[in-house]
Amino acid sequence: MKIAGRIKNLGTETAFAVSAEAANFAAGGNKVYPFHLGDMNIITPENIREATQKAMTDGKTGYCPAPGIPQLREALANNINATHQTNYAAENIAIQPGGKPVIGKFILAVMEPGTEVLYPNPGYPIYESQIEFHGGKAVPYNFSEGDSNFTLDIDSIEGLITPKTKIIIFNNLQNPTGAESSDDEIKKIAELAVKHDLYVLADEAYFDIRYEGKSRSILSFPGMEERTVILYTFSKKFAMTGWRLGAAIGPKNVIDIITKLNVNDESCSNHFIQYGAVEALTGDQSGPQNILKTLIERRDHTIKIVNSIPGMRCFNPHATFYLYPNVTEAMNIIGINDYHEFRKQVLENTGVSFCTRLHFGREIGEEKEKYIRLAYSGINVDQIEEGLGRLKSYIENH
Amino acid sequence: MKIAGRIKNLGTETAFAVSAEAANFAAGGNKVYPFHLGDMNIITPENIREATQKAMTDGKTGYCPAPGIPQLREALANNINATHQTNYAAENIAIQPGGKPVIGKFILAVMEPGTEVLYPNPGYPIYESQIEFHGGKAVPYNFSEGDSNFTLDIDSIEGLITPKTKIIIFNNLQNPTGAESSDDEIKKIAELAVKHDLYVLADEAYFDIRYEGKSRSILSFPGMEERTVILYTFSKKFAMTGWRLGAAIGPKNVIDIITKLNVNDESCSNHFIQYGAVEALTGDQSGPQNILKTLIERRDHTIKIVNSIPGMRCFNPHATFYLYPNVTEAMNIIGINDYHEFRKQVLENTGVSFCTRLHFGREIGEEKEKYIRLAYSGINVDQIEEGLGRLKSYIENH
Repeated sequence: MKIAGRIKNLGTETAFAVSAEAANFAAGGNKVYPFHLGDMNIITPENIREATQKAMTDGKTGYCPAPGIPQLREALANNINATHQTNYAAENIAIQPGGKPVIGKFILAVMEPGTEVLYPNPGYPIYESQIEFHGGKAVPYNFSEGDSNFTLDIDSIEGLITPKTKIIIFNNLQNPTGAESSDDEIKKIAELAVKHDLYVLADEAYFDIRYEGKSRSILSFPGMEERTVILYTFSKKFAMTGWRLGAAIGPKNVIDIITKLNVNDESCSNHFIQYGAVEALTGDQSGPQNILKTLIERRDHTIKIVNSIPGMRCFNPHATFYLYPNVTEAMNIIGINDYHEFRKQVLENTGVSFCTRLHFGREIGEEKEKYIRLAYSGINVDQIEEGLGRLKSYIENH
Repeated sequence: MKIAGRIKNLGTETAFAVSAEAANFAAGGNKVYPFHLGDMNIITPENIREATQKAMTDGKTGYCPAPGIPQLREALANNINATHQTNYAAENIAIQPGGKPVIGKFILAVMEPGTEVLYPNPGYPIYESQIEFHGGKAVPYNFSEGDSNFTLDIDSIEGLITPKTKIIIFNNLQNPTGAESSDDEIKKIAELAVKHDLYVLADEAYFDIRYEGKSRSILSFPGMEERTVILYTFSKKFAMTGWRLGAAIGPKNVIDIITKLNVNDESCSNHFIQYGAVEALTGDQSGPQNILKTLIERRDHTIKIVNSIPGMRCFNPHATFYLYPNVTEAMNIIGINDYHEFRKQVLENTGVSFCTRLHFGREIGEEKEKYIRLAYSGINVDQIEEGLGRLKSYIENH
């Protein structure tokens, strides 16, 4: 069958190719240390699974309303209001089969073709894909390596704004950099949005994956609630990646349209797992607390070893489960300038598998500094130590 | 927030408004007899729920591949090959969060903007919505009331074909009419598709909801496998409507594109329920057999009463869980010519709730015969008898 012309504008997550390569390498009898996965090797907390099982046994196996069961919409509105200084009600919530569906549905609901959309690069590659697929122009903004964190240059972001710019995608607590904006930086992004009348997609997938301090949402700044849709997901906080459950949260008129897209695309999200999500939000919180304990231990081990490897350095982010080490010098030591070749050599010589900067968008101009992403959500501490130890030896022996 | 212009082309399922009205009426302390639901009041068979529970407990709570777990793709390919005379392998299957997602993804994958798409009207309203939303022109074809079944007029369908016509949507064992095409009728549709080089979306949601005889797929005719995508769903056969699990089945190159759309839209379908679906296909089949036993009993009671009501008549379809009675005379008896008013009067006077012809597409020209849809998937036999008994008295007393 002949494929429609529009599909040429559809991007993908090239990180899946890394998983496939790692799996092939493992199938050849080799040990793999999986730092490439944004997935988690931690099971969903028992109370969430039990509530889900109960709902299934109780016959919650028929359709539910397109925007989700009322109990979950209410629980989520309350949950967000408590941390975001917002005034959401159930009508501001449309449950989705994952956080990801919010990206495409938000774009379809508010982006006119020809509009320019600012998005983070490096960043989650689906932003660019959905913008371009639906006829927008994806305009990347970049991060700089600051003293203790990756930072945004607000002036350079403002310099990208034209009369056609209508939307900015903001992913604070960022994938892949682990960047956390200061309150001042968030405030300035909010002010930019108000000044230029931009709508905001606030991707808060990692809002609750934090090890110290408190996450601050752009929603807590003036003028944001009326122009922002939040991408919420149950995936990370509750180790529910494979459940596919999330939500779009925003002004009622946009949520109504996103609900209409639900009716067209999938009717509703799985019914009985929504009861598990109610338990996740309102029940015993020791599950997510234990997940954070596991992750912080992994983070600390990963950072310590990475910063001991010649030619590699990384920050100590307080949130997300990603590190984004600068590997410029390490690549020089090995004598490889190409990301793909570097990744392949490291995999074949050490078993350590990771994504590079290129899996999170095209390079912007000539980028002198080189970065890789290490995800520690899918690998245990002993394997972190063993794998990164092999990487360290490999580089030291050059 | 300002909604994008494209949303004006997005349709919906107006049947949801009927559910809301019925719920309001019930909330007023009134008894409702729900014939409007395409949902089922039958719980998913126990072995499917148990396999799902086991997978969840075993930690199948992380992501799975975008087109689904290999075991399910293989089991479904085998299952379809056994009934369709096809040669599918796992690579021909992309698991979806429901059957419905196949409609939009198929349209996006193969329909160029400006293309004309033939679709059944009365029919599932999402066809027209997705065609028009993505820039196609939806061209309706109609059914006629034959001697013992609703039938298609192949010549008039061929008369609708222009050089711009590239796709036909064919929903044999049809919602809402319950129509089943004869082998000859299916063969002629297949020949039309080959002759005019049309792609086919074969919506087979009710393929296995049949009470006697055998379902025949358009896929079993020459030239179809290379130009057809099947909409498959677990919803009806296994009473899994609220699980949201289905599949697109077709040529590998289209399935690859639909998988790329999965990556963009929702990553994958819920992981652990796919193990339940493997059990559904390969395990004990007494569950779906009992579901059919329940449904046929309801069908027989519904048909018997409907055909005893003055001014109403319906066929005895061997498949689906819908009846599509001709109510022209009944409306005359009550003295109402308007579908909305008829539905409202019947609900308020008898509690019987149903959808009308208008919930399944715009009237085509001036339609003299009037129809309603009675779904018996969500109502037990005693309630069928009580509700339709009240409807009968209501009409008899005019």
